[in-house]
Amino acid sequence: MHLFYQPGVDSVGSVAFLREDDSRHAIKTLRLGIGDKIDVTDGHGNRYLAVITSADARRCQFRIMDTQTTPPRPFSVRICVAPTKNLDRIEWFVEKAVEVGIERISFFFGQHSERRVLKLERLEKIAVAAMKQSLQSYLPQLDEAVPFSELIKTVDEEQRFIAHLPSMDLPDDNSPVNLAKVATPTGQYVVLIGPEGDFAEKEIQQAIAAGFQMVTLGTNRLRTETAALTACQLLNFLNV
Amino acid sequence: MHLFYQPGVDSVGSVAFLREDDSRHAIKTLRLGIGDKIDVTDGHGNRYLAVITSADARRCQFRIMDTQTTPPRPFSVRICVAPTKNLDRIEWFVEKAVEVGIERISFFFGQHSERRVLKLERLEKIAVAAMKQSLQSYLPQLDEAVPFSELIKTVDEEQRFIAHLPSMDLPDDNSPVNLAKVATPTGQYVVLIGPEGDFAEKEIQQAIAAGFQMVTLGTNRLRTETAALTACQLLNFLNV
Repeated sequence: MHLFYQPGVDSVGSVAFLREDDSRHAIKTLRLGIGDKIDVTDGHGNRYLAVITSADARRCQFRIMDTQTTPPRPFSVRICVAPTKNLDRIEWFVEKAVEVGIERISFFFGQHSERRVLKLERLEKIAVAAMKQSLQSYLPQLDEAVPFSELIKTVDEEQRFIAHLPSMDLPDDNSPVNLAKVATPTGQYVVLIGPEGDFAEKEIQQAIAAGFQMVTLGTNRLRTETAALTACQLLNFLNV
Repeated sequence: MHLFYQPGVDSVGSVAFLREDDSRHAIKTLRLGIGDKIDVTDGHGNRYLAVITSADARRCQFRIMDTQTTPPRPFSVRICVAPTKNLDRIEWFVEKAVEVGIERISFFFGQHSERRVLKLERLEKIAVAAMKQSLQSYLPQLDEAVPFSELIKTVDEEQRFIAHLPSMDLPDDNSPVNLAKVATPTGQYVVLIGPEGDFAEKEIQQAIAAGFQMVTLGTNRLRTETAALTACQLLNFLNV
């Protein structure tokens, strides 16, 4: 099955066009032609079973034959992460998080962030590719990077966690608990993942004041992008 | 804290040397000198608190002041995976799996494998770097790639699973169950992850005959390396 992405598709019987990159992929790479069936998602849970009606490699036309709506997951995962110094690592996180399932990714600049600029365009393409690759019908929301204090104000999820690096200095009984022990199923979750230099003490206090609970993701010291994916995976498993 | 890797380190009071790459890293990059404290792991659970006694960037000498032994985890995770066509993806898997915690990674060539050669040298370096980065004392075992039928014979773990791509053709009640529903805590686990073209039917039958249970890792179609990491993460969470 080949899944394409086209936002704003109309109802059964109508015709529409694939975007240029998808048109080229369909006609040139996959060598599809008139009459071939394709699947198209609008990224909002609607899947269209369609038939190619014009095999134009720049503007492939299709007619919608049937439509199928996937309900959203009964829980939602939002990961807020400080972009890594090395862009590859955050791109990798976006690809993997979308593959395994996530609703929203928000970026922020923390006090210890080395990276101060993040362009979403490439990340959005990666997210679309991962959604198609993993055969999902929802495109996760990606938010422009904002300063940490602004990010905190946008949070409306009930289950709020801030992941902290495991510390060698704290005795075990003072350490934050593992996310797996405190998150409860079918929630709306948000997890904050700090930059390579971790959160500043002031940021942790801001988060706690905003109702966030400090958690760990295990005893290993995880890189930023690994921690972000681990939190996402853990919340997904909790809801299997 | 700076953690170095040196297999075969001796007892308290003795001196030893860091390997060339670690020596350069310690002296040139981190600018450590005589009297500075370092941590050294032998990759077998032993952590040595040491002091630099000669700041040679090619052969840094240290004296062991104290030693600490970490017990192995009360469970073990072994992932057997077919190398991906694109080497980056399998390198990424090794880095991430070591970071989050794994005991053993075995590679195999399946009937549908596109890649037929895999050199371990670079992967071993990545594993060492990830162990140090995540501050662990155990270096996971990496096994040379062998044909699938040979791999099956090397399995002695009790909890055996073969991950299968979600199928659109099977009705829900015929689909394999999720790994999260059948694996039980504190086990010795092994999970087989197929190549991009999935397992051949014959391979699935071989695995089932060898006591493997078919499982899924969710409803999304995961890439090989994503599936491999997801299985690893899931078994880790099961044991939190």
